[in-house]
Amino acid sequence: MTSHDDPSAAGTAAQGDLGPAGRAAADLATDHLAGVGDGPVWRPVPDADREWLVGQELPAAGRPLDAILDDVRTRVLPYPMGNGHPRFFGWVNSAPSPAGVLVAAPAAALNPSCAGGEHAGVLLERTVVRWLAALTGYPHPPGGGLLTSGASMATVVALAAARQRAARLDGWDVREDGLYGRRPMTVYMSAEGHGCLRKAVELLGLGRRSLRVVPVDAGFRMDVAALREAVARDIQAGALPLCVAASAGTVNTGAVDPLGDVADVAAEHGMWFHVDGAYGALGVLAPRAASRYAGMERADSLALDPHKWLGVPVDCGCVLFRDPGPVRDAFSLVPAYLRDDDADGLGWLAEYGPEQTRPFRALRAWATISHLGREGIADLVGHCSRLARTLAAMVDAAGDFERLAPVTTSVTAFRYRPAPDRDDGLDVLNRALPGLVRRRGRAFLTGTRIGGVEALRACFLNRETTTDDLAVLLDEIRAAAGEAGRTAPAEPNG
Amino acid sequence: MTSHDDPSAAGTAAQGDLGPAGRAAADLATDHLAGVGDGPVWRPVPDADREWLVGQELPAAGRPLDAILDDVRTRVLPYPMGNGHPRFFGWVNSAPSPAGVLVAAPAAALNPSCAGGEHAGVLLERTVVRWLAALTGYPHPPGGGLLTSGASMATVVALAAARQRAARLDGWDVREDGLYGRRPMTVYMSAEGHGCLRKAVELLGLGRRSLRVVPVDAGFRMDVAALREAVARDIQAGALPLCVAASAGTVNTGAVDPLGDVADVAAEHGMWFHVDGAYGALGVLAPRAASRYAGMERADSLALDPHKWLGVPVDCGCVLFRDPGPVRDAFSLVPAYLRDDDADGLGWLAEYGPEQTRPFRALRAWATISHLGREGIADLVGHCSRLARTLAAMVDAAGDFERLAPVTTSVTAFRYRPAPDRDDGLDVLNRALPGLVRRRGRAFLTGTRIGGVEALRACFLNRETTTDDLAVLLDEIRAAAGEAGRTAPAEPNG
Ligand SMILES: Cc1ncc(COP(=O)(O)O)c(C=O)c1O
Ligand SMILES: Cc1ncc(COP(=O)(O)O)c(C=O)c1O
Repeated sequence: MTSHDDPSAAGTAAQGDLGPAGRAAADLATDHLAGVGDGPVWRPVPDADREWLVGQELPAAGRPLDAILDDVRTRVLPYPMGNGHPRFFGWVNSAPSPAGVLVAAPAAALNPSCAGGEHAGVLLERTVVRWLAALTGYPHPPGGGLLTSGASMATVVALAAARQRAARLDGWDVREDGLYGRRPMTVYMSAEGHGCLRKAVELLGLGRRSLRVVPVDAGFRMDVAALREAVARDIQAGALPLCVAASAGTVNTGAVDPLGDVADVAAEHGMWFHVDGAYGALGVLAPRAASRYAGMERADSLALDPHKWLGVPVDCGCVLFRDPGPVRDAFSLVPAYLRDDDADGLGWLAEYGPEQTRPFRALRAWATISHLGREGIADLVGHCSRLARTLAAMVDAAGDFERLAPVTTSVTAFRYRPAPDRDDGLDVLNRALPGLVRRRGRAFLTGTRIGGVEALRACFLNRETTTDDLAVLLDEIRAAAGEAGRTAPAEPNG
Repeated sequence: MTSHDDPSAAGTAAQGDLGPAGRAAADLATDHLAGVGDGPVWRPVPDADREWLVGQELPAAGRPLDAILDDVRTRVLPYPMGNGHPRFFGWVNSAPSPAGVLVAAPAAALNPSCAGGEHAGVLLERTVVRWLAALTGYPHPPGGGLLTSGASMATVVALAAARQRAARLDGWDVREDGLYGRRPMTVYMSAEGHGCLRKAVELLGLGRRSLRVVPVDAGFRMDVAALREAVARDIQAGALPLCVAASAGTVNTGAVDPLGDVADVAAEHGMWFHVDGAYGALGVLAPRAASRYAGMERADSLALDPHKWLGVPVDCGCVLFRDPGPVRDAFSLVPAYLRDDDADGLGWLAEYGPEQTRPFRALRAWATISHLGREGIADLVGHCSRLARTLAAMVDAAGDFERLAPVTTSVTAFRYRPAPDRDDGLDVLNRALPGLVRRRGRAFLTGTRIGGVEALRACFLNRETTTDDLAVLLDEIRAAAGEAGRTAPAEPNG
């Protein structure tokens, strides 16, 4: 064995020169980005490649880097989920920001754990979190936030902090005691709230039985009078109202709950006020929509996903808190009497959530925000919001489509309705359409249920999407409906 | 706006040609890897760069990619956590595998969410999980595992599944009912078990009060007789024994619990048997240690961290399960009557854990395993295990060091003890040493408490580390102890 003080053995000796392979890998990435608009949005994986992807044997001997990169080129990159394409309108999945893609390799090369300690990774995460607070107009005390793998984990962190604070105020310690023998802690979300809230309630042992699903108004916003009644009922029944979780941009229609009114109810009852801005928090940057967000800055916690509208490559979620105290209290394993040892008093980031080893998400987010700047981000949000309104207008003007919700952020919810006077079979047809459209390869959208009917929704997150793409989308839906008629002749809407 | 069907506007038009910036970014990554052994292991961040890292303003206008990459080169990459260096021996943090670094950019460019659906990301994750089961000799039913952000989240998934199954067997549904009014569910770990177990127990609402910390034997392995007594006591007291979590490689000493005996106790009482192999599961590949792992294959769940010994760039954890049923039952929001719709019957990966959007961790893990092959991985594990034994022998032979634990995997636990007949001040000195060593920049190790005393531990994970590096480590500790004597003259061990 040789020493690392011997220059002939240093670093590259064992690996050979990685430079050419590194550049080849980078070319794979940038060529993919450059070509993504030319290929189909999505394509089924042919059997041979599927068999390779799921079935390949663990190699006994190692394989060379160029063979590995060749596999990436021929068997992996051709089968995207679709979200890089300008005509991907499904769920809430964005195209990756080029700056975020570029720094992925340097981040992996530095490879810190951002659990804590003194190094660039932890320090840069502080900046990114502060920037996200600045972008969304949310207060930012030192230590008031954390990057997470996504909004689902951000929600777990937020609800754990809420549970911790509520139990303390009630005179017990949930980490020590658990929930046995306690009165139910109730959580409130709207009927349009995201499933991650339900998952977090269940994970924390609070029980879905203690989750109140509050109805929405005609604009798919939480009905605050109904919220107020539900809280009153629960208090009467002896429950401890824990948290109300409002949405700043629902996944179905992009609706923003009446955040100020919800904040009032939370304040009246000493409840934790959480805002799920996973998709929509950045929508506050669109001047036409900003007033809808009044009250978001009053939240105890705000979840948002830089890997959604900002286009930071997955994964990058974030949770911001008004007061870091309850969060650290909910997760830290460092005894309180040792916490004063920190230089900045904030301790390790791992004390604020369930992750011990924490990846360097901050570099992708920092590069993305730096590359766009505040203006570029506002421009992106404005562009996407306009596309949603434009599609809504096109839907309204067309004789064969029907709009199903107002546009608040960058989601347009609608359905195909070829004969305006006929309702029969519409649900069956609209349920089939997303799959049929996807298979045609020129557009990708997803369905949902809105107001009791099967709906189509298009979510806009991509700066490269144009109004021409909207026309393609509607034509693709019409063509897919034609196919549905041919392949399912029993349907009345062929 | 232009159409994407117009070739002049396709893809690259909006961004310009990203190729050169991509290659420059790749060079940053590979140059960093090539030079990492030449620089200090770690260095404090100078004030000016710290101020930039934590304090920079959100830019109003976007900045060009080359300026961003320049910042990465001059202000980020110079301040590592240290774990890329061959003389980093701290915690359990590895150097990144070159193959894993290279595919980071293509993975980010494809940018799928591996929540589910048909695309390369989801399919390749099935292969990686199967390979990890094969490497660790663990059974692998279809769908029997999942990549996670790390072992902490793997542990949350495993304990949630345990809780779900136990409640069902007890006649209730913890997701629906919560834990209120139920009898305590007890969890067992050893005194050397990792803190993530405690965090998971707390997060799930089970309460630390229901966590039994079982003592260890002289080899720092769980005392199975004590475990058996604790379970019997809890049953007598009316508790529901939920889960025993054994370690396959503790963080302090690398000890492997007597897994077969623990499995017996779990089986006797119908408890969930979890194995924390975050760090050490791959140690089973070292022929000398393999017999220690007998029983690991009987676990209901096995957590392991490809981002530890395998060197997959952070983040990449994994949880394997013997039976995917309770895991899906614990997390899926898809009603059971809809689950038959899946082609393979396995549904979405997001149904098996708390994350909705899930990153493409699989590509980094797949590339790393492919590049090493089974033989290369076994070779890496063997190399690191030999280094730990060699250091132990060096410590034993030196007059001024004392070994504190047997070597099972690749951790050597010891302390500096310059005067073998004197014990006073040893704790103060050994507590100071890791920080002093680190500041000197030539080695990085961390401390802990072992058997009631302050200890040093060195963990080996890096194929590039040599025996010469071990001699440097011991000399650095001696030199740091000399500094401690000079800077803290009151100490008796100067
Ligand atoms: C409104 C909303 N909340 C929460 C989530 C969950 O976020 P993640 O997938 O990042 O966990 C989503 C994801 O689509 C969402 O749209
Ligand atoms: C034995 C053991 N278990 C669990 C963990 C937690 O793993 P992670 O940091 O990936 O969450 C660690 C981390 O060091 C560990 O060493």
